Amino acid sequence: MTPLAGEVPGVPVGTCFEGRRALSEAGVHRPLQAGIAGTALGGAVSVVLSGGYEDDQDSGERILYTGEGGRDPRTRAQTAHQLLTQGNLALARSHLLGQPVRVIRRVSGSTYRYDGLFLVASVWHEVGRSGYLIWRFLLEAQVPQPAGRQVTTRLSRKSIHAAQVKAWHDHTCQLCSLRLTTPAGPYAEAAHIRPLGQPHHGPDTPENLLCLCPNCHVQFDLGGVGVEDDLSLLGRPGLLRRVRAHRVDPAGLAYHRAHIYSADPGDPD
Amino acid sequence: MTPLAGEVPGVPVGTCFEGRRALSEAGVHRPLQAGIAGTALGGAVSVVLSGGYEDDQDSGERILYTGEGGRDPRTRAQTAHQLLTQGNLALARSHLLGQPVRVIRRVSGSTYRYDGLFLVASVWHEVGRSGYLIWRFLLEAQVPQPAGRQVTTRLSRKSIHAAQVKAWHDHTCQLCSLRLTTPAGPYAEAAHIRPLGQPHHGPDTPENLLCLCPNCHVQFDLGGVGVEDDLSLLGRPGLLRRVRAHRVDPAGLAYHRAHIYSADPGDPD
Repeated sequence: MTPLAGEVPGVPVGTCFEGRRALSEAGVHRPLQAGIAGTALGGAVSVVLSGGYEDDQDSGERILYTGEGGRDPRTRAQTAHQLLTQGNLALARSHLLGQPVRVIRRVSGSTYRYDGLFLVASVWHEVGRSGYLIWRFLLEAQVPQPAGRQVTTRLSRKSIHAAQVKAWHDHTCQLCSLRLTTPAGPYAEAAHIRPLGQPHHGPDTPENLLCLCPNCHVQFDLGGVGVEDDLSLLGRPGLLRRVRAHRVDPAGLAYHRAHIYSADPGDPD
Repeated sequence: MTPLAGEVPGVPVGTCFEGRRALSEAGVHRPLQAGIAGTALGGAVSVVLSGGYEDDQDSGERILYTGEGGRDPRTRAQTAHQLLTQGNLALARSHLLGQPVRVIRRVSGSTYRYDGLFLVASVWHEVGRSGYLIWRFLLEAQVPQPAGRQVTTRLSRKSIHAAQVKAWHDHTCQLCSLRLTTPAGPYAEAAHIRPLGQPHHGPDTPENLLCLCPNCHVQFDLGGVGVEDDLSLLGRPGLLRRVRAHRVDPAGLAYHRAHIYSADPGDPD
């Protein structure tokens, strides 16, 4: 049976459980050991924060969550790179699907509290304190929306320079050269190279934006395509399309390669 | 100068103006006669509701707004079809851009009140009471979002059947056959054929969904592509991709052709 994302009926926010078995039997977090529950294709459904990872940070509504794997089972020290597989892949998939994840915190000893639904607002990788690559996830408490107003698409922050950058490129995608047209005119999206806001703190400048079609925007944000300093593309053939007026910041491209672009083969299933 | 969308500094919601000239000079709604201000490429920036159209409906937070054109200048009677040009095109563009529009209501005689920012939640066409084609726009009061949480993409309602339909098609677009892949797995969107909620009241059923890539989703929702009863595509060559498990409702396709699909040439600029 595919595990279900979202609220568990009869389990309000704040419900406490004694031990992982009780948590599992209530259907709030099924696995007895793993911190992340879910599947590669269906996404993550729940995560448990036990305070086990040295790189985790938790400020209530916003959690920097470290992925799983690469730790010595005996010493719990990070001794290898983490991979975009299993639980890490499930969390990345939740981000892609815009699907909320249940968050459970260990509040003391063996007491666990269900703390509500969070969205995976950001997915990236970095070199942890140990020197090994770790996957990181920014979880943000889901803001209730009016009924029927739910948005299916990914969280993507607005830029005040979006219209300018799209006009410079005449709404032509800088990755695939498509100019998507509709009866309401051409359509493109302005994608931040180094993302805005926590945890990336990219600048909202035209130099930090690309003009992309929606399909390439999904792939760029999820790390399926990157851009080298010489503007050749990573993950597919081709060059970044340029226009004279629009300077692209090489430092932004380097940041994207280091933290977002993933050389993984692409399709896990 | 391109007119600016969004709040006008120093003009809080509820501000009243005596006459169209005062409204214009304050920069709230520039044109002295037209009900819709804006451009084909930049989108609409403001609309004035004067109660002039017989098909308008206004329930406060939600406005069914009728497009402009096709009326006899002397009698004000609808004597021709409305076209997706000028103000109508500007409002469709605001929908595509997810860009808010200032709403001004005539509250009495020559008194106009600025009533805040609305999103163009839906764009369609229908045969009005006069028997002529009219363009219609559903305006919804913008819900304030936490800072930095603004979403750039179009409003699109969630379906509880989205995962099922995407799985049936293995995330392959039914219009262009693309299977978009990312390091977090394949990505597709479930698009309602007859839209959910007001004013279309389409059913949330698998039969009323298509599995589309983001690019084709934009074009389908904006009426750049339609589907005939024999599943041949309108607006581009090809056939709707089918799988045995997924029945598509012909009535939904007919509704989309009648109200969403637009035979306009496509690119206005």
